[in-house]
Amino acid sequence: MDENILGIIAGVLTSISMIPQLIKVIREKNVEDISLVMLLVLISGLSLWVWYGFKKDELPIILSNAFAVLVNISLLICYMFYRKS
Amino acid sequence: MDENILGIIAGVLTSISMIPQLIKVIREKNVEDISLVMLLVLISGLSLWVWYGFKKDELPIILSNAFAVLVNISLLICYMFYRKS
Repeated sequence: MDENILGIIAGVLTSISMIPQLIKVIREKNVEDISLVMLLVLISGLSLWVWYGFKKDELPIILSNAFAVLVNISLLICYMFYRKS
Repeated sequence: MDENILGIIAGVLTSISMIPQLIKVIREKNVEDISLVMLLVLISGLSLWVWYGFKKDELPIILSNAFAVLVNISLLICYMFYRKS
């Protein structure tokens, strides 16, 4: 299989799997199961993967990790928004 | 920064961020927040990333996604084990 197609399919699958958690948090307005430290570690790691993708010039790595950064920054915003309520 | 070092740091960070969920599930024996379909989608996607890593011959991609496959297969085993209790 072509490497880029393989990477895009892999990226779509791992991206899809992240969506339900975000929907659940938005719908239930409940962030008590989210660890702020781990969310920050994850966002840092994903951002480094985006950087790695740029250095290697690999679009599947860049796109899927950039998407994951967006999902997890949304979780972070939810965390800050719902934490006190 | 050297690409391999960057990839290894990125992989360590994203790997660390997965551990607390596994510990929580094992400790609390509670899998009701886990979606079986999404877990299977995630394991499929991660396995394709491992394949992608082998095709591209990139050790950071292989190691971090293989680790993620192991963590999520452990979650799958927990899911099957604790689902009925």
